[in-house]
Order: sequence, then structure tokens, then C-alpha cells
Amino acid sequence: MFSPVYLDHNATTPLDPAVLAAMLPWLEAQFGNPSSRHEYGRAARRAVDEARQQVAAALGAHPTEVVFTSGGSEANNLFVKGAAACLKPGLLAVSGVEHPCVIKPAEQLARQGWQLRKVAVDGEGRVDRADWRDVLAAQPKLLSVMRANNETGVLQDVAALASEAKCRGAWFHCDAVQAFGKLPLSFRELNAAGVHALTVSAHKIGGPKGAAALVLDKRVDIAPLIAGGGHERGLRSGTENVPAIVGFGIAAELAAAGQAAAAARIGGLRGELEAGLAALGARLFGAGAERLPNTTYFAIPDVDGETLVGKLDRAGFAVASGAACSSANPEPSHVLSAMGVSAEIARGAVRVSLGPQSTHAQVKEFLNALQATVVGLQRMTSVSVDAA
Amino acid sequence: MFSPVYLDHNATTPLDPAVLAAMLPWLEAQFGNPSSRHEYGRAARRAVDEARQQVAAALGAHPTEVVFTSGGSEANNLFVKGAAACLKPGLLAVSGVEHPCVIKPAEQLARQGWQLRKVAVDGEGRVDRADWRDVLAAQPKLLSVMRANNETGVLQDVAALASEAKCRGAWFHCDAVQAFGKLPLSFRELNAAGVHALTVSAHKIGGPKGAAALVLDKRVDIAPLIAGGGHERGLRSGTENVPAIVGFGIAAELAAAGQAAAAARIGGLRGELEAGLAALGARLFGAGAERLPNTTYFAIPDVDGETLVGKLDRAGFAVASGAACSSANPEPSHVLSAMGVSAEIARGAVRVSLGPQSTHAQVKEFLNALQATVVGLQRMTSVSVDAA
Ligand SMILES: Cc1ncc(COP(=O)(O)O)c(C=O)c1O
Ligand SMILES: Cc1ncc(COP(=O)(O)O)c(C=O)c1O
Repeated sequence: MFSPVYLDHNATTPLDPAVLAAMLPWLEAQFGNPSSRHEYGRAARRAVDEARQQVAAALGAHPTEVVFTSGGSEANNLFVKGAAACLKPGLLAVSGVEHPCVIKPAEQLARQGWQLRKVAVDGEGRVDRADWRDVLAAQPKLLSVMRANNETGVLQDVAALASEAKCRGAWFHCDAVQAFGKLPLSFRELNAAGVHALTVSAHKIGGPKGAAALVLDKRVDIAPLIAGGGHERGLRSGTENVPAIVGFGIAAELAAAGQAAAAARIGGLRGELEAGLAALGARLFGAGAERLPNTTYFAIPDVDGETLVGKLDRAGFAVASGAACSSANPEPSHVLSAMGVSAEIARGAVRVSLGPQSTHAQVKEFLNALQATVVGLQRMTSVSVDAA
Repeated sequence: MFSPVYLDHNATTPLDPAVLAAMLPWLEAQFGNPSSRHEYGRAARRAVDEARQQVAAALGAHPTEVVFTSGGSEANNLFVKGAAACLKPGLLAVSGVEHPCVIKPAEQLARQGWQLRKVAVDGEGRVDRADWRDVLAAQPKLLSVMRANNETGVLQDVAALASEAKCRGAWFHCDAVQAFGKLPLSFRELNAAGVHALTVSAHKIGGPKGAAALVLDKRVDIAPLIAGGGHERGLRSGTENVPAIVGFGIAAELAAAGQAAAAARIGGLRGELEAGLAALGARLFGAGAERLPNTTYFAIPDVDGETLVGKLDRAGFAVASGAACSSANPEPSHVLSAMGVSAEIARGAVRVSLGPQSTHAQVKEFLNALQATVVGLQRMTSVSVDAA
């Protein structure tokens, strides 16, 4: 049986069975292309429209503000490069703890005449307000700050940052991929504060891989990354992934409806987890800041994170040693570096991210397995130290 | 019951039940992120690797040449813009009958310092060889010619065009979205002739929406459209759409294995269809050229295509009046314009595209419905002409 305990919900989430059920007709008899002008096509178009309304409602946005993409990475690239393509090169600033799919396109722009600044964060991973004001004084054209960090779960006070940036004329984008479903999230409120665009992704909220959205204030001109037939108001061409979009709609609805209760329950589990970690002498990253209720990022002194993740995997627990996307990359986390954590300590980093399926029993079992593993590893370390 | 006769396989195809069956485990228990370093992640990574091998084998390519994307439009944009980003601006030439997802990115480049030439086609929709030589003499840097046209089904002799282009140093891309599964297709052979990149898409071959590939000669440098975590050898970041990629792998395998038999059978049906259309006085577009075995593009004198498609839809037959992607656009087909067909005649265009599920009985019923509809419309026309 394939069923290790899954504690890696920030990497991806299991598809909610209700979401899969809603997708199935669109994977079976109702397979039409929404652009086709016959019954199969019209049915698919209605389904995409309904999902657009669901996603918009879940986010406090207007349906016409929702641009469907294939994933969060695409949505982030679409905003960063698409907005830049409609401006003369200037200053672009992103926080130093952004996801690679914000940082890399920003670095591509930096090779095309843009000036890139990575805004400093404090030791807890929060944007440094003095550095922020310094950036704003330098007349930025594009700003991108995430709502919640995927590694630490640390929140940025995006509304406050945007308010300070307002009246400066820069477009402000917020990657809300990790926040959606875990925190209240309203595009209308953020937009009023000065946020012009928001990225969300289905597979992080119990929805399918293959659907995401850029929610976009219509005053922002952006050029399409994928040009062609003119889908999504000309901002994203290509035959719509109807089943995934339908699933995203349902998942968004469920995530918004269940958010408060899930946060309370999962936050409780996280408290138990962190109490257990403290007893093991773990260092928690970002724990002094407001965080997502489901995420714990820790290191245990003298225990290598990769090794620990491997041992826990064999013991039947799925956790992460860094951002999933860059786990193939052995370098220490850029998020921890930006927080001033030494490479040595960062190498110990392990992320546990809980989800709606997580239980009290799983947390207890995990802590037991962790303790046994850590004791085993520390014994090995002390043996090799003795031998040295 | 939702079951009009589906005769629009060039727009999209029903998902093969065997493909859906192969996808389901990845929509259920095996939901991992391929970048995660635990059992869920490794299982997903193996699945993506296997699908890559299947797609490569079906196309006569090496697995490391396959770059998965979310769709054909993304793959075409990735090649056109990605290759251009690694070159100094120069001449870019695409045939005048390319899909909008080749033409539009080419037009974006034309606003960024590139010179764009649309290569002329003859009255049957084939690239004009004199114009091709003229283009080659002008030292192009990028070339894109499709293997089979989505509207007419007309084939381009891509190997011959590429052979002439070889030694000129241009990168040659071929959109094979409509050819795959309907014709023999070998990247190895095309690559030997001088083709450097090939686009294919799953939902056109009985696979799911949400997966496609750019097959790429590794000598070609391209910049990613979607930058981030470094997935797909750095050419396409973002969490892989594992279920769709798994489905694409199976669909590619089935398409390649069944291609010859399907082409023979479907070609026979198309013959019946076209005999019936001739009896109705239809004009066939591109019928003097080599074509896909499944596609018929026709107009019946004095009958409006949109109107005919609408009537046929109500009669229970799903056909297209133009490329599905741009059916929302009331302008006459750019493909027919490029072929020198007048706007008046082009407004009559209707496309029937058969598929593996199409039957002799469906073709007969369709011809009956078409005849009844046409007679009705012509009577109306003659009444209104009489009244005028
Ligand atoms: C904060 C954040 N932004 C963007 C992404 C990218 O999403 P996707 O991998 O679905 O493209 C992720 C997921 O890894 C993320 O955690
Ligand atoms: C020839 C051709 N190229 C590219 C595409 C784009 O594929 P997709 O809509 O899957 O992005 C299509 C489909 O409409 C096509 O027919």
C-alpha cells in the first residue's frame, strides 16, 4: 500500500474527492473546446465561465479580473514579464524571499535593461520597512511581494506595503499561492490598499495541477506570455484546460468556505508539533513573525536536513527539506540566507506543512519517528566525532 | 442525453478511456510533486520520466529532447520567443497559414526589432517554393512552418523546406500539432533534414488538455518563457501537471501504434464524405494538395458557414466554421485569405474533422442532415432574393 503520512502540503495537496468528482464529466463525455461553436463547445465555455465566477467569488474579485493560467509559475511570469513589456525599463523590486518563479523572471529582466533590487528581510523573514521605503524613494515601476512564504510560512503585511507604495505609480503584484485557502484573502481589499495583481494556484488548495490564476486590476497593461488565439481577453492564449479549470473553481469555493475552520484546527495541530519540536531542541525559523497556520520550518542542531528527510521518508513520513521546486538543488535555501541564517544552520532545515487531512495521531507519530531518527543520527554523529 | 455527433477532432478530441484510466491514480492517491524528495514525489517523478520516454518513442526523439509544456500554444510561443531571446534581432519567417499561436508571437517580435516575413502559399495552401527561396536568400534566423494545417489539413513538405534551409544557419521549427497521430512523424528524420524543433499537443490525439511538448534539438539555445524552479532542464518551470503528462504519454503511444490503421479507415470515411459534398456542389479547399486523412474544409455556394454550423449544431452535428481558437472572431479565415480565396467564398467555410470514433453511419447521417439544411437555407435565400 502506498500511504506514507503526507506532511508536505506546501509542495502540493491531494486532490479533494469532491473536486475530482466535479472534474470527471469534463474528462469524459463533455470534452469540448470552449472556443467551438457547437454544443460540446458551449458546454465547455459555460463550465469555464462558472469556474471563473467561483474563483472570483472565493477571492473577492470580479470574474473579468481572473486570467486563468496553467500554474502559479506561469501566472507570476505573466505578471512580471508581461507588465514589464508594456513599460520602459526602470527599477523592479521584489522581496529577497520570493519564490524562484518571481525571482528568475526578474533576473531575466535585469539582463534586459531593468534594474533589479531584492528588498531586504529581517531575521524573521519580514520585509525590512526601512529598505522598503528606500526602494520606494527610488521610483520603482514594478513591485512583487508575496503574502506568505512557501518555506517559512511567514506573512508579509502586503496591504501595508502596498499602501506605502500607492501614489508612487508602480504596479504591485502579490504572490498569494501559499496564502490562498490558509488565510482570509480578498482581492477587493488588497486592491483598495494598492495591490494590482494576485497569483493563486489550484494544486495548493486541494485542486488539480494545471490550473491557476492571475487576478489582475484592469488598469494594468500586460503583454501576453502565450500569444495566439486571443483566449483570456488576449492575455493567455491556448485551448483552456477545462477539467482543471472546473476543478479549480470547486476547490476555490471549498477553500474559501472552509478556511477559517481549517486554520483553527490545523493551527492547533501545529502547536502540538512545535511543542514537540521544542522538546527536541529544534530551532524554528520565522516563529517570531505572523505565519501561516500550517507551516513549521525547523532545524535540529547538528542534524542534516536532507538526511533527516530521507530517514523520515523511509519511516513513512513525507516532509520537505526546502522548497519542493528547488529540492533538486543542493544549495542552502535563499529564503534562510536572506534571513541571515548561516549556511551551516540552513543545511539542517526541514519543512512540515500540514493540511486538511492531517490528524492529531499523525502529528504524534511524526514526533515519535522524528525523535527516534534524531537520536539515531546524533549517535552516529557523536560516534564519528569520537572517531575523529 | 448529451451526444451530438462529434465531427470536430481538429479542435479537440475526446479523452481515450484507456488514457483516463492511466491518469486516475495520479488524480487520486499518487498526487505528489515530482520535485519532492519523498515517496510521493519520487513516484510522480518516475511517472513523468516514463511519459517522457513514451512521447519520445512515439515521435522518434530522445527523451532528453522532450520539453513538456501546458499546451501547443505554449510550446509554439516557447520556441518562437525563446529562440529569439538568444539571438540578435534579424529576419524571422513563418508561413502565412500558421496557427495564430505562431503568428502572434512572431508579430510581438516584429515590434521588438525583428523583421517578420509571412511566406506566401499557393492556391492549395502549400508554401510557395519561389518565395521560400527568396526568404532563404535574405538570411533568416528563425523559420516556422507547420506540418499540417488545422483548417484545411493541407501538408507542407517540411523535410524538403528544411533541407533547403539547412546550411543557412537558421533555426527551423515545425508545428506538428495536427500532424501527430494522423501521419507518420519522426523527429529523428525531420531533424536529419534540418528541422530543429517540433510542437505536439496531447488533446489533439485523444490525450488530456494541459500537456504538450516542444521537442528540441539540443544545439538550439532557448530562454524559458516560464522561469523559476528550473524544471524541464531550466526551459519550463512550474510544478509538472503529472496526471496530464501521464495521459499524454499513453495517448502518444496509442496514437503512434494506431496511426496507420486509423489513417486508412478515416481516409475511407473522408472519401465518402467528399463524394457526398461534391454531389451538393461544395467547393473543397486544398483538395488538390496532400492533406491529412481526416480533414475536409468546404463551402457550399451562397450558404454562410456560421449559419450552416449553427443549423447543423441544432440538428445534432458538431462541426467548425473556422479554426476553433478563433471562431469567436468573425473575420474570414487568414488561411483561406493566404490561399487567395475571396472573403465572400471564405465566409462559407465549414470544417469537418473526423476521428477514431467516427463511423460510416455518422458520415451518412451528416450528409443527409447537411443536404436538408442546405436545401432549407437555399430556399430561404432564393425567397429573400425573389423578395428583393
Ligand atoms: C509561493 C509560491 N509561488 C509560486 C509557486 C509556483 O506554483 P506552481 O509550481 O504551481 O507553478 C509556488 C509553488 O511551488 C509557491 O509556493
Ligand atoms: C496547428 C495548431 N497549432 C497549435 C495549436 C494550439 O494548441 P493548444 O490550443 O492546445 O494550445 C493548435 C490547436 O488549436 C493547432 O491546431
